[in-house]
Amino acid sequence: MANAEHKPVAILATDGFEQIELTSPRAALEDAGLETRIVSDKAGDIQGMHHADKGDRFSVDTTLEDAKASDFDAVVIPGGLFSPDTLRTNDTALRFVRDFFAQKKVVSAICHGPQVLISAGVVENREMTAVPAVQTDLRNAGAIVMDTEMVCDQGLVTSRVPDDLPAFTTKLVEEIEEGRHAAQRQSLDS
Amino acid sequence: MANAEHKPVAILATDGFEQIELTSPRAALEDAGLETRIVSDKAGDIQGMHHADKGDRFSVDTTLEDAKASDFDAVVIPGGLFSPDTLRTNDTALRFVRDFFAQKKVVSAICHGPQVLISAGVVENREMTAVPAVQTDLRNAGAIVMDTEMVCDQGLVTSRVPDDLPAFTTKLVEEIEEGRHAAQRQSLDS
Repeated sequence: MANAEHKPVAILATDGFEQIELTSPRAALEDAGLETRIVSDKAGDIQGMHHADKGDRFSVDTTLEDAKASDFDAVVIPGGLFSPDTLRTNDTALRFVRDFFAQKKVVSAICHGPQVLISAGVVENREMTAVPAVQTDLRNAGAIVMDTEMVCDQGLVTSRVPDDLPAFTTKLVEEIEEGRHAAQRQSLDS
Repeated sequence: MANAEHKPVAILATDGFEQIELTSPRAALEDAGLETRIVSDKAGDIQGMHHADKGDRFSVDTTLEDAKASDFDAVVIPGGLFSPDTLRTNDTALRFVRDFFAQKKVVSAICHGPQVLISAGVVENREMTAVPAVQTDLRNAGAIVMDTEMVCDQGLVTSRVPDDLPAFTTKLVEEIEEGRHAAQRQSLDS
């Protein structure tokens, strides 16, 4: 029955994340009865932003050093200009993200969040989107880029901007629940 | 004698540029007797940053709408996370930058500044550098990326971080003066 066990969803962020892109998915996940954990490159708390203005600080639940993809059912990567920019040069963060792909788990990223996926080397031939400024980099990295509010490609959910959050969070919850149903079926069959 | 005429250097920036990456090249250029103009996507003034903290505001001299590459001898693109992110999706900014390449003028960019060059489509097969987070995007765009303090490839001068500013500004001034000497020789020969 181990496959059917419910695990929390990791929200991967550090200082300078776009606050609404963390709080909105977190609220949607929790409303669906899913547990969330903020995973970061440091212990303590991290700074949210409202674009260029500082927002609130958020407590980190687990540091990347202690986090394993196998402890989670999915990962969400919020945008903001600073957070993905820092995480994309952190080898532990990139390995953490790659492990979700290797374990065929749900991965989601919004706005500048897909920059982390570019640096993790996991976007080639994947249908995706991102904030317009990053779409060129995604395309150059080999992704099939669409300029729509939400793109879902086999458990990889991406969106462009805060306005896309309703479509993003709805699909994110759906994909995680679908993954769990598949795991439960697999577990019942075996 | 038109070729030998001295023209100012454009500093292309908008809100959220890294302040030292504007003030340091500007000071070096002015110390060398070169005139500078801040060119931006809007009139009025633009916000400097010290990484995530707001710095001073700087007056815009010329808007992109009124600026032509032919009015300048060179362009400098400072980094900061917001300014290049905004400019790289501005078609007028990208056309302005491309014109410097077409006119074989000095182009320089530091930190996140090279993101604008990626979006302008001018980096393929060019030797360049950028802040580590952007080096992957540069490589994916076809640039030959070097992780050193300054790279100069036929009038294209790039650097990684504020610590590289001494090497960056020295080479920038050298390249502009060299371009002027070549123009003067051409003018005397004709």
